[in-house]
Amino acid sequence: MSPGSVWQGRGRRLQMQEVGPRDGLQAEAVFVPTADKIALIDALSATGVAKIEVTAFVSPRAVPALADAEAVMRGIQRQPGVVYSALVPNARGAERALAAGADELNLVLSASESHNLSNLRMTQAQSFRALVEVLALAGPAGVPVNVSLSCSFGCPMEGEVAAEAVLAWCGRFIDELGLRRLALCDTTGMAHPAQVAERTAAVLARWPQTELTLHFHNTRGMGLSNLLAAIDAGASRFDAALGGLGGCPYAPGATGNICTEDVVHALELMGYDTGCDLTALLAAAARLPALVGHELPGAVLRAGRRLDLHPRPGSVDAICQAAPGG
Amino acid sequence: MSPGSVWQGRGRRLQMQEVGPRDGLQAEAVFVPTADKIALIDALSATGVAKIEVTAFVSPRAVPALADAEAVMRGIQRQPGVVYSALVPNARGAERALAAGADELNLVLSASESHNLSNLRMTQAQSFRALVEVLALAGPAGVPVNVSLSCSFGCPMEGEVAAEAVLAWCGRFIDELGLRRLALCDTTGMAHPAQVAERTAAVLARWPQTELTLHFHNTRGMGLSNLLAAIDAGASRFDAALGGLGGCPYAPGATGNICTEDVVHALELMGYDTGCDLTALLAAAARLPALVGHELPGAVLRAGRRLDLHPRPGSVDAICQAAPGG
Repeated sequence: MSPGSVWQGRGRRLQMQEVGPRDGLQAEAVFVPTADKIALIDALSATGVAKIEVTAFVSPRAVPALADAEAVMRGIQRQPGVVYSALVPNARGAERALAAGADELNLVLSASESHNLSNLRMTQAQSFRALVEVLALAGPAGVPVNVSLSCSFGCPMEGEVAAEAVLAWCGRFIDELGLRRLALCDTTGMAHPAQVAERTAAVLARWPQTELTLHFHNTRGMGLSNLLAAIDAGASRFDAALGGLGGCPYAPGATGNICTEDVVHALELMGYDTGCDLTALLAAAARLPALVGHELPGAVLRAGRRLDLHPRPGSVDAICQAAPGG
Repeated sequence: MSPGSVWQGRGRRLQMQEVGPRDGLQAEAVFVPTADKIALIDALSATGVAKIEVTAFVSPRAVPALADAEAVMRGIQRQPGVVYSALVPNARGAERALAAGADELNLVLSASESHNLSNLRMTQAQSFRALVEVLALAGPAGVPVNVSLSCSFGCPMEGEVAAEAVLAWCGRFIDELGLRRLALCDTTGMAHPAQVAERTAAVLARWPQTELTLHFHNTRGMGLSNLLAAIDAGASRFDAALGGLGGCPYAPGATGNICTEDVVHALELMGYDTGCDLTALLAAAARLPALVGHELPGAVLRAGRRLDLHPRPGSVDAICQAAPGG
C-alpha cells in the first residue's frame, strides 16, 4: 500500500452533488407535491452537499413530475455555499431557470446520437446549437453553465462509445465554447473502473482547469468502484442521488444513481472528507419511500451504518456458563 | 494511472470460490430439494469457479436447509480442477465430510466471541479445540483444512474487531497449527476498503505462503470495492455466491454475499482473468429465484450485461427526418 493509495482518503476533500430532486424524481411515476420537494431540498441543503440539482425547466408535458420547476426553485431556502443548479434543454428553459434564480444551468447532451434523440428528442447537432443559445443567455447573466455528457461510458442502444468521441465532445465544449464545468455521465450504468480511470485521467490531463464531475449509476453494482477509480485518476466531484433514486426509461431494469448516503458512508470510513453529515443524509433519505411510494436501493438505510450494533441473543449467556473454561 | 494499477487487470489470474450452495442456501427459509442442489452444483462445476462450498456437515436440527449433506456431496458430478469443500463445525462433522468424500474441510471460527457464541453455539476456545480435533482427522486422510475467520472486519454485536486480534488468530492457525488455507471473512458487510487494504497487506506480508481467501458481503454496497482493495493488497482468491445469495440472522437487513456473476462481470471488463464463463454463471443464476422463491440481489441478472443493448424507440426516426441537417 503506497501512502497515496486511493483506499486511504487521509482527509482529502471531495464534493458531493445531489441530483435526486431532478434526476431522481423525474423517473418516478408519482408527482411529489411541491411542498414536499421544497422540504426535501431544504433538508438536503443542511447536509453539506456542495450542489443540488433542484429541478428541470423542461416541458411539463415531457416531464410532468417536474412541472412545478418555478415554484420549487423559488420556494427553497438557500444555504450559503450550496450551488442550486437546474437542468435546461434549450434557450426557453434557460430563460425560465434564470428568471427563477438558478445558480447554474445544466444542459444535457449525449455522446450517443441514438440516446440524444431518445432522451432529448433532438439530434446532437440541435442540442449543441441549443447549448450555444443557452450560453448566450447565461453569460450576460453571470450564471455558469455545466454540460452533462450522457453516455460517456457507453450507450444502451449503440453500445460502446469511443473515448475519442467523448474527448472530441469535451474539446468542443471547453476549447470551442469556453465551458469550464463538465460532467462525464454514466447514464445507464455501463461504466467499469478500467474505463473510468482511463477517461477521467485523459480529460484531466488535457483540461486540468475544468471543474469535472463524474456521474455514475449503480446499475451493475460498479458505482462505488467507478467512483474510486475516478478519485484515483484525479476527480473530486461526484453526482449522487439520495436513496439511490433514479433510472432510465431506455434501459429497462436499470437501477438508479449511486446512492448519496451509501457513498458518503463508504468514503468517510476510508478517511475522505465529503463535507457531508451522514446523520442528516440518512434522516432525509428515510423520508423518501413515503414520498415516492416504494422502497429505494440505498443499502445503509436498510442495513444501518457499519457500527450500528445488534443485541446478542439471550441464549448466548447460557452457552458461556455451560462451556468448560478457557 | 500507473501500469500496475488495480483498475487494469491485464490478464491477472484470480480464483473465484462459490459459496452459494452452503453460505447461501443455509440462509433460505425453504428446503431446496436434494436433486435441485445437485443440479445447481453441477451447473456451477461447469462455470470455471475454482472451488465450490458444497454443503455443511452440521446438525440437521441447527441447519435444516442442509440436512441432506451426505446425499449432496455424494450425488454431485465432480469436475477435474474444482475443489469441493464442505463446512464442518467439529470432529463429528469432519468424520461425516471425509466419509462423503469432501476435498477440503472448512471450519468457521469467529474473531468475535459474541459472534462465535451466537453463530456456532461454542466459545472461541471450544471452536479452537474443535479445529485441533478436525486437523487430527483430516491430516491422516490427506485432506486440507481451511479456516474461515468470521468477523475479521467487525462484529455486528461487538463492533470493531482490532487488526491485532485478527492477526493473533491468524498466527494461532498458521504458526501454531500449521494451517495453509485461511479466509478473512466480512460476515455481515462491515468491511470498508481502507481496512481491507491494510489487513490483507498485513496478513500477506507476515504469511506470504498462505492460501488467503477474502470473503465479502455486499451489505452496505462496498463489496466490489473491498474486493478491489484486496486485489491491490495482493489477494487473488475470493468467495462469492451466485445471485448474491446469503445473509446473516444476527444482522437484520443484511444482504448477501458478493454476487458471483456481478463480480465476474466487473472483473472481466477490467481485464482480469477469473477463469469463469459469465454466460454459464448467468444461466445458473437465472434458475435461483425458482429454487429459493424470491428475487435475488444480483444486478447483472436484472439489468443485463454492460453491452446487452436495447432497441431505439420507433419515434426516434421521425425526429431524425424532421431535424434540420447536421
